[in-house]
Amino acid sequence: MAMRTASVHRVAMPDPGDASGLDGLFAAGLLDPAAVVCIMGKTPGNGLTNDHTRELAARSVAAVLAARLGIDADAVRARVMLLFSGGTEGLLAPHLLVFARAAAMATNDRTPSLAIGLARSRALAPPEIGRTAQLEAALAATRAALADAALEDPAQAAWVQVKCPIPAPTALAGASGLAAPDVAGIKHLSRAACALGVAAALGDVPRAALDAVALGARPDLGTRRACVTAAIDSPCVEVMVLGNSASWAGDTTIGSTALADMLDAPAVAALLARLGLPAAPQLTEAQRARLIGVILKGDPPPGDRLRGARHVMHDDSDIHAFRHYRAAMGGMLGAVTGDCHVYLSGGAEHQAAPGGAALAVIVRRG
Amino acid sequence: MAMRTASVHRVAMPDPGDASGLDGLFAAGLLDPAAVVCIMGKTPGNGLTNDHTRELAARSVAAVLAARLGIDADAVRARVMLLFSGGTEGLLAPHLLVFARAAAMATNDRTPSLAIGLARSRALAPPEIGRTAQLEAALAATRAALADAALEDPAQAAWVQVKCPIPAPTALAGASGLAAPDVAGIKHLSRAACALGVAAALGDVPRAALDAVALGARPDLGTRRACVTAAIDSPCVEVMVLGNSASWAGDTTIGSTALADMLDAPAVAALLARLGLPAAPQLTEAQRARLIGVILKGDPPPGDRLRGARHVMHDDSDIHAFRHYRAAMGGMLGAVTGDCHVYLSGGAEHQAAPGGAALAVIVRRG
Amino acid sequence: MAMRTASVHRVAMPDPGDASGLDGLFAAGLLDPAAVVCIMGKTPGNGLTNDHTRELAARSVAAVLAARLGIDADAVRARVMLLFSGGTEGLLAPHLLVFARAAAMATNDRTPSLAIGLARSRALAPPEIGRTAQLEAALAATRAALADAALEDPAQAAWVQVKCPIPAPTALAGASGLAAPDVAGIKHLSRAACALGVAAALGDVPRAALDAVALGARPDLGTRRACVTAAIDSPCVEVMVLGNSASWAGDTTIGSTALADMLDAPAVAALLARLGLPAAPQLTEAQRARLIGVILKGDPPPGDRLRGARHVMHDDSDIHAFRHYRAAMGGMLGAVTGDCHVYLSGGAEHQAAPGGAALAVIVRRG
Amino acid sequence: MAMRTASVHRVAMPDPGDASGLDGLFAAGLLDPAAVVCIMGKTPGNGLTNDHTRELAARSVAAVLAARLGIDADAVRARVMLLFSGGTEGLLAPHLLVFARAAAMATNDRTPSLAIGLARSRALAPPEIGRTAQLEAALAATRAALADAALEDPAQAAWVQVKCPIPAPTALAGASGLAAPDVAGIKHLSRAACALGVAAALGDVPRAALDAVALGARPDLGTRRACVTAAIDSPCVEVMVLGNSASWAGDTTIGSTALADMLDAPAVAALLARLGLPAAPQLTEAQRARLIGVILKGDPPPGDRLRGARHVMHDDSDIHAFRHYRAAMGGMLGAVTGDCHVYLSGGAEHQAAPGGAALAVIVRRG
Repeated sequence: MAMRTASVHRVAMPDPGDASGLDGLFAAGLLDPAAVVCIMGKTPGNGLTNDHTRELAARSVAAVLAARLGIDADAVRARVMLLFSGGTEGLLAPHLLVFARAAAMATNDRTPSLAIGLARSRALAPPEIGRTAQLEAALAATRAALADAALEDPAQAAWVQVKCPIPAPTALAGASGLAAPDVAGIKHLSRAACALGVAAALGDVPRAALDAVALGARPDLGTRRACVTAAIDSPCVEVMVLGNSASWAGDTTIGSTALADMLDAPAVAALLARLGLPAAPQLTEAQRARLIGVILKGDPPPGDRLRGARHVMHDDSDIHAFRHYRAAMGGMLGAVTGDCHVYLSGGAEHQAAPGGAALAVIVRRG
Repeated sequence: MAMRTASVHRVAMPDPGDASGLDGLFAAGLLDPAAVVCIMGKTPGNGLTNDHTRELAARSVAAVLAARLGIDADAVRARVMLLFSGGTEGLLAPHLLVFARAAAMATNDRTPSLAIGLARSRALAPPEIGRTAQLEAALAATRAALADAALEDPAQAAWVQVKCPIPAPTALAGASGLAAPDVAGIKHLSRAACALGVAAALGDVPRAALDAVALGARPDLGTRRACVTAAIDSPCVEVMVLGNSASWAGDTTIGSTALADMLDAPAVAALLARLGLPAAPQLTEAQRARLIGVILKGDPPPGDRLRGARHVMHDDSDIHAFRHYRAAMGGMLGAVTGDCHVYLSGGAEHQAAPGGAALAVIVRRG
Repeated sequence: MAMRTASVHRVAMPDPGDASGLDGLFAAGLLDPAAVVCIMGKTPGNGLTNDHTRELAARSVAAVLAARLGIDADAVRARVMLLFSGGTEGLLAPHLLVFARAAAMATNDRTPSLAIGLARSRALAPPEIGRTAQLEAALAATRAALADAALEDPAQAAWVQVKCPIPAPTALAGASGLAAPDVAGIKHLSRAACALGVAAALGDVPRAALDAVALGARPDLGTRRACVTAAIDSPCVEVMVLGNSASWAGDTTIGSTALADMLDAPAVAALLARLGLPAAPQLTEAQRARLIGVILKGDPPPGDRLRGARHVMHDDSDIHAFRHYRAAMGGMLGAVTGDCHVYLSGGAEHQAAPGGAALAVIVRRG
Repeated sequence: MAMRTASVHRVAMPDPGDASGLDGLFAAGLLDPAAVVCIMGKTPGNGLTNDHTRELAARSVAAVLAARLGIDADAVRARVMLLFSGGTEGLLAPHLLVFARAAAMATNDRTPSLAIGLARSRALAPPEIGRTAQLEAALAATRAALADAALEDPAQAAWVQVKCPIPAPTALAGASGLAAPDVAGIKHLSRAACALGVAAALGDVPRAALDAVALGARPDLGTRRACVTAAIDSPCVEVMVLGNSASWAGDTTIGSTALADMLDAPAVAALLARLGLPAAPQLTEAQRARLIGVILKGDPPPGDRLRGARHVMHDDSDIHAFRHYRAAMGGMLGAVTGDCHVYLSGGAEHQAAPGGAALAVIVRRG
């Protein structure tokens, strides 16, 4: 197989209606729009049911790509995996992570570099969402994405980014046979099914172990290398696998780890150190210049305690627990990185131990 | 002067209606209720105009002290400085810091230990609030508190905790001659006046320099050793000075520092190291057992940028910027300390550079 | 039986920490504090999990009664039914409704007047809450309250106000055998159990019909003459029955009706007309002077439609549906009454048809 | 002048990303897309600073018109006045009002029918916004719109709908010379300037009277026939005048009135009666079928009282006063109309007396 190279660019997107930052990448010749395979965006909405910043940002991004590629917006969505997550509470900054890949010159350098593989399942019918059919679709799509990245060993995969379908709220009215009676319930099960599919594909959980358990019933089971987000704009499971491989060229690399709880800064620091960015106690400006992407998937601890101390994230009827969580985790991660850019997403069913989190970091090698 | 000793106890208070944790201190003989001079509490409300958890917690705490001291609740409030701040967003935990002092045996140990001094100004009339009369009252009260603590040199003072008056919302309707037209405006000016009074008393700003400027007009001026919170339950400026002095005995000590911005974890780590608690990168459980109190005063950065990145704290019409801020700072500080207990208060007029913060830490010496 | 008289007074309570309005009633000699049997209060919190204004108001009210009666606050709570509901969204005004009864001179006037009866069940254990044991306790307490009011025929009962227990949030951590896993779920079942108990006692649903159905499973079943609110401060079911009876003297009367949906102003106008207050189209100031109390129990319509139009009450992740609902219903009712005082409470399990409401109005006869 | 006809269509738009309801009008042949001159939309966001549903809805609507007209979206915005207001709290329904006009056959019927006139000012520079230059621009544009509608006498104008510019939040960072330091302040002054310009053009306030007063200084001055909303997507003042004129044909008519306070249901009923829709006490389903559009502009009462009763709309730090207001007014208006569709907008500077409101109703004649 010919050598390939993968890159990730971080672009500011202060307003979800304005993707000129992305266009600037293309205008400056920093990136070929045809090479883009996925764009993940963090938008400034509430990240919950009625967050329309995700759709607005998706349209803005799709319009830029459409203009650059000379295709229409629907064709962009069919070609590029678009993944928007709302919620930039606290010091978090809205931004895009643009993933691209291209052919590369053969090289003798055997340093493992960032590898990107993608796959998309068939369209799922609403009653399949949040059920075994979706788990199987996610499993198959993850395997296909691993193959697309030429990652023979699932251990080479550092991270699996998944977009899973949910019916649009207005589509629920007449629907029957759904896995749960409301959007929140379907989201929960849809993420759970995808996470378990990924877990089986990566070998983190034996496939056979999943037959005996209901989705969500064993929150301890799962992978720690995935981030699944739910979206209403696609009926398919879309998967992007990120790993490191000597078959890929480039100066970008990725690592991931599990956080034990909301305060597990040592795990963050250890991952950064492993990637060549030791914080003492915080990354310097020069180190931060090499930090491209930080992706976190996690949830507030169940119950009302963290390290024995009372928290009120679940008891605040004015602010959703996920909003509390994102604001706090932006501060916790920023203490170590000195940076405000985190693609931080709640809803970590089978992607993290209860109260824990999964973290991926993408860096440019020094 | 006879030797004295000061102590600070941290007590959980998960519910603002339940001060049994405080009572437990007394029941266990860990603290003499008659020695208590101040109680600072963080409560789980929104920390804004309509946060009634502060008053509920104050009543709960006063009732416990009243029963233990055999006096009524009003007498408790006249005797003990009660200071409640709302807002335990994110991972922050509602709790009390109980300050006490007592006579001590003379000792040859000249290690400076925690010193506590208190003072209270005359009652201010509503039109004096947020004006020079209040600045002068705060200045005089701070000097009196320094003298009460026998801190001859203001440099010995690490921290000045101030409770400043604002009229109750319902009292504003008929009032005239007020410094600002609404509660928010009066709060702002009341905190500003007190902070400048403290700054002059500590010598952080020459008193003469304050005559020429309107309150709030020079946000760069001020002290970095104060935390002023506004309250409707007292018409006086109440001041507690905390410092270190060889005239005081005990194993408790305090330090303070300024944070340059919301991500200034290195300043936090440096202060902890100076107090004998080096984080690598986070305090261990044994070190955390020596961490008694963390007090932070600060605000989100003005404008919409932090380290060049866009933030939406001021643009979120559903969640107040202070609530975003507290959640984020709880995470940032917790990354270094590994702990959830911070008395974290917004409204840092003249107490921190814009976007910065002032931090005090109280520890038990190892 | 000797003749009795019942009265209801409405008192403003702008701040939950200040019950001086109530004290003013007693100071002015308008009401004998010893005659008070129940106080219902609407407080300005969010009316949801973390609304502490209810407890603060309860303490303020209990302190006033304790001082007037020369007993302590606990004795007040044992003697008087205290019922606080949070949420004065929109134009709603925080206020108290004070229910009292006393001996009266015999009279030949056979006009039915307001009758008040009270009863309290045994303390329920946490696992009994939201289960049949609670339904039975509510049924028995309602019967006892009917007898206490000397209302022989349940048809004479216009309204049954119920306070039902839920465990305090902090008590849930270690509890086992509960009817639901979280506070919201227990609240739901506790209200449902009480409402069905009331329905059986009033004969609105045959007791036998309830054995076959799980609580909440048949939302169409129930009474339309009850308002059940959950509270953490009592382990008992407390019941106040309000009716009209010729055995009672006085110039106060009560009526109730069911609203078909959130816009059922005609039902409101019809009830007012029946009580001698025809709105054309709104009560005049003179008519409003005779309007003492308005109590509404209802919920937003399930689904996302009202009269075929889309509403977003359930889809707004920043504002709870109950807060939307209370604000809207305050406006709807106020259009007819011209008044801002409604004891308006959400959570109408078995007290109203889905999307409908139950309404009680107390007036002084002209 | 040739006879013209004007029409208004109401279309549901449950989701701001989906304008298929609008497209359905065209597909069904109910309306010629080329006849559309203005679309007003109510979207389900928070209606405040970070409400992106307005922009998303505008794009959805513009895309439908662009496809039908064979022009691009920018050309649509240049041709059609697009006016989106966020906030469908409580029972309010997101929807569009589509205004169209066309040539009509001459007729002998002299019944005054709906007349529509439009005009657009030059682009204003940011420092002109909220200042006299904008007032003059609004005045001139209103006169031009009156002329465009052939309404010789300003008394024929029932309503003036105005879209006024504000700088985008992200544009404020570097700007200088602005009329106010933040978005909220500029919005306030921009609406005020436009409202006074309209008032002068309609003769509701003598132009000379405006020279002596600062914008906003005399809140009692103004018109009661205007609704001004601020938007970031156009630097011009855009004006649509609606009136009744015998020069126009059709079965549509409009009326307007002033509401004295939030509970002024009698004024609503009186206006409906004047338009041939007497409510007794609520419009019947047949009457509602003739109700096309309801537009309300108003604000919560200043201070904390409504008809002497305490309200907490300004003191709720979790929900903005405008959100409380919209929810309550939706209920109040719905009590009379029986309907959920109101284009209800806060920020009534010089458009209503403090605490009052201005109301327009568009109906089909019976």
